[in-house]
Amino acid sequence: MPQTPVLKSEQIAVYLSGYTDGEGSFCISFSPRDRLKAKIEIRPSFSVSQNSDRAEVLLLFKEYFSCGSIRPDRSDKTVKYEVRSLQDLVTKIIPHFRRFPLLSGKQKDFEKFATICEFLFTRNINFEQIFDLAFQMNISGKRRFNKEYLLSLL
Amino acid sequence: MPQTPVLKSEQIAVYLSGYTDGEGSFCISFSPRDRLKAKIEIRPSFSVSQNSDRAEVLLLFKEYFSCGSIRPDRSDKTVKYEVRSLQDLVTKIIPHFRRFPLLSGKQKDFEKFATICEFLFTRNINFEQIFDLAFQMNISGKRRFNKEYLLSLL
Repeated sequence: MPQTPVLKSEQIAVYLSGYTDGEGSFCISFSPRDRLKAKIEIRPSFSVSQNSDRAEVLLLFKEYFSCGSIRPDRSDKTVKYEVRSLQDLVTKIIPHFRRFPLLSGKQKDFEKFATICEFLFTRNINFEQIFDLAFQMNISGKRRFNKEYLLSLL
Repeated sequence: MPQTPVLKSEQIAVYLSGYTDGEGSFCISFSPRDRLKAKIEIRPSFSVSQNSDRAEVLLLFKEYFSCGSIRPDRSDKTVKYEVRSLQDLVTKIIPHFRRFPLLSGKQKDFEKFATICEFLFTRNINFEQIFDLAFQMNISGKRRFNKEYLLSLL
């Protein structure tokens, strides 16, 4: 068996973008929160899933980005690498995918995700604008609340 | 929105390996064939799946490797890039993944796959040895025939 070549750090960066294009997800979720002044909590997250029998690449993500956590996904037999910290998303995750972009249509989801994270980070929060962007993302995924319901909470 | 940087050709190579680590599959399938002298047909294939709404990366695979085909997967709403030609597997696909290896345990499956393809290509065919290697691959996947049944056909 030939010896595995060692990838250079830029190659690892590109590899992780390729992997993310296959298995990664940029997600904005909304939760009604009576106790919050804004009534809605906005939670952005970046995640990558993998069957639990080969989670090596998730460890590489955690090491490369120096943030996030790895945990079993409750819904199935997968393990998930996830970054939820807005600071980490804005300072580590987003710059990476601008430098080493996804080559599929998922990059468009990423750009909407990045815009929302930057709005949140700079506290430039216009809920309607954020809903509009978020509801154009991951069209094939399911959403617990529709836009009209969320708007009615404000 | 920032302009998407153009990847260099080596970066594309690494990206496609990363993507394959997430969504790709190396498979050896066996079919009983009464008419064949050997009674069993061995079919290796390399494939990568994607939701049909974002098949751009599959086009990139086809262009990069200059072989294979893209077609809808009958089983679900995905599209599949697939290489079945033994010549293409041995001269294009296998050299690529030796130069730009997968970083997860899937690389071990690839190495078994490569060994089997090279046996087939050089007509160095020991069915029992090939079954042993193939049945160590993709353990989580389903197989239509077990090893004992296949051996009984020889």
